[in-house]
Amino acid sequence: MKFVIKKEDLYNGIKIVERATSVKALQPVLLNIYIETVGQNSIKLVATDLDMTIVTTVDAQVEEEGKITLPSKTLNEIVSKLNDNLVTFEMAATEPLVHITCKKTKFDIIGISADEFPKECSNVEVDEANCFEIPVKVLTKAVKQAGFAAAAYENSNLLSGIVFSLSENQLEVASTDGNRLARVRESIENDKTNLLIIPARTVNEFAKICSFIDEDNVKIYAETNRIVIKSEKTTTISRLLEGQFPQYNKLIPNESPKEAIVNVSQMISALDRVSVMVNEKTSIAKFEFTENNLNLTADTPDSGKSEENIDIDYTADALTIAFNYKYMLEALKNIDSEEVKIGLNTSLSATVLRPNSEEDFVCLVMPVQIR
Amino acid sequence: MKFVIKKEDLYNGIKIVERATSVKALQPVLLNIYIETVGQNSIKLVATDLDMTIVTTVDAQVEEEGKITLPSKTLNEIVSKLNDNLVTFEMAATEPLVHITCKKTKFDIIGISADEFPKECSNVEVDEANCFEIPVKVLTKAVKQAGFAAAAYENSNLLSGIVFSLSENQLEVASTDGNRLARVRESIENDKTNLLIIPARTVNEFAKICSFIDEDNVKIYAETNRIVIKSEKTTTISRLLEGQFPQYNKLIPNESPKEAIVNVSQMISALDRVSVMVNEKTSIAKFEFTENNLNLTADTPDSGKSEENIDIDYTADALTIAFNYKYMLEALKNIDSEEVKIGLNTSLSATVLRPNSEEDFVCLVMPVQIR
Repeated sequence: MKFVIKKEDLYNGIKIVERATSVKALQPVLLNIYIETVGQNSIKLVATDLDMTIVTTVDAQVEEEGKITLPSKTLNEIVSKLNDNLVTFEMAATEPLVHITCKKTKFDIIGISADEFPKECSNVEVDEANCFEIPVKVLTKAVKQAGFAAAAYENSNLLSGIVFSLSENQLEVASTDGNRLARVRESIENDKTNLLIIPARTVNEFAKICSFIDEDNVKIYAETNRIVIKSEKTTTISRLLEGQFPQYNKLIPNESPKEAIVNVSQMISALDRVSVMVNEKTSIAKFEFTENNLNLTADTPDSGKSEENIDIDYTADALTIAFNYKYMLEALKNIDSEEVKIGLNTSLSATVLRPNSEEDFVCLVMPVQIR
Repeated sequence: MKFVIKKEDLYNGIKIVERATSVKALQPVLLNIYIETVGQNSIKLVATDLDMTIVTTVDAQVEEEGKITLPSKTLNEIVSKLNDNLVTFEMAATEPLVHITCKKTKFDIIGISADEFPKECSNVEVDEANCFEIPVKVLTKAVKQAGFAAAAYENSNLLSGIVFSLSENQLEVASTDGNRLARVRESIENDKTNLLIIPARTVNEFAKICSFIDEDNVKIYAETNRIVIKSEKTTTISRLLEGQFPQYNKLIPNESPKEAIVNVSQMISALDRVSVMVNEKTSIAKFEFTENNLNLTADTPDSGKSEENIDIDYTADALTIAFNYKYMLEALKNIDSEEVKIGLNTSLSATVLRPNSEEDFVCLVMPVQIR
């Protein structure tokens, strides 16, 4: 194996695939990046933790074909510190040793044979029939807006996944951890119906990778037990979660008996200030809606109290309701509009937040019972 | 107690004094900031961990005199989140409760009575006779350059202090942890002789405070067991370390049998790259000086090797010497000159680094013995 590559191209490629590198070293080879020459003018980089795999192709001048795996952390550290020049990778006579040279800088790295890398990860085949195309911007915005409510706990739980529900010309993305729920609907060109539950980790890592992908669209291949997201040079593969996801659409009320219209940034900064005195054990802030006024309060015994008042649009009967302020803040931060419509019912009913705009986005936050 | 203060002035004051707030709560009051009205137009903020005390004066419109201590962390959090307006502090009828209001934002904070705050800290008197003046810039530069070599370990050890040695028209600042040493000499107007060993923590915190101090000079009062550093509005008081500091000046050779002249930024980036393959247990990098070339190498068994070559000015006999690369890097980063003169003798002698300029700065790094 011997190839010459631009430092910047290589660094960009490593940044993309290293997100899939295993953190727990079940097998040492999963801590490594798989490197293989492809024809005369490119190399392939692959990393996987077996749940998620990322493959990317990088331009390089191949002088001798071959493959190897090298430790991701060391490789990243070396390449990040190299000057902006051409870098040569060459297999030593005593494989799996690789010489890396860049002008007067030389490294010898000991790798692990490419044969030990899982074959199904280094070679990804897809069925072109089973695919739809989506603009990168639409996908990343939907994921950011509606993916935050997924449960943080372990991988196997369905609620730790993000739902992608496809119907004619529509993509619906949703997540819920039981305390709150987020759902967004985007128009796309599509004629298939499908419901995929993708681990939140894969989706979030993919959204981060998108900042390195200089392309307008990605193709998504939904297969029986995995999803493949493909741009021209980069492919992300993830397992799917299997099971019956809660019927979340039934939980979202279409209309609310009481409605407040509130300036989003005012409410975020007021809630942020009130939170200083929130009891750390409960995270509860109290919301008191009265005529055109929202009163926010929090208190911690032995420490003190906080209080804010905001001018709002509200003419219904007065209502006092309490929330975990963190859930409310996160919901508000995902409202991409100057004003939010807050739909209320009783102090124990799920509260609905929608942007005061045409956008089809909705957040549900469950209140907390207080005495 | 009642006063009105600009949010920004208050925030700046808190930022200055909070550096002295105790982290370990031996006494709860040491986690608090002492606040006292001073006349009609200012308040005084004080914080201390008993080793170091910081006092600062902030403009405010005093409506009713008084004093209190309030929790530093909560106060900082509240003030940082307030809008840029006037803030009112008012003692409640039920002391030690304080009302803080800023437009539609209200806080009630429970403090601790000012009587519990150490009296010697809230009221600092100095002897004007025992003082010298120094430009803030000179002091902070000297401390940054020659203070980094102090030992990191516990407070009571002399080597964890930074030496300030005063003689006629000269300030010498030095530190050493036994493995390396840094010394800088600056011209100042002074006619006293004195040797002060100041805990490195105080000195470093003071250097950080200087970015908030908008004044050219500070006065330094050297007393028997404490040092007072005073600008117009801010006073920092620290205990001094007592004992016989090593005679470090005797360790610094005036001339070296072998000398290399090396570009500083080239050497820093080469050493930084080589360090990727340094054995984490030893941190050893090997330096090989031959005619006009410096060869840097490191290796870790099972992981690999690194090598760099730099063009240097060197005509003496070849010499191989090894260092903890971290000590060498830190020394180089404090050389404020394009080139460094490296004075060498044998592979076991202390190596001397000086800027290739007029500046009176010197670093000593002890080599490591290798087989």
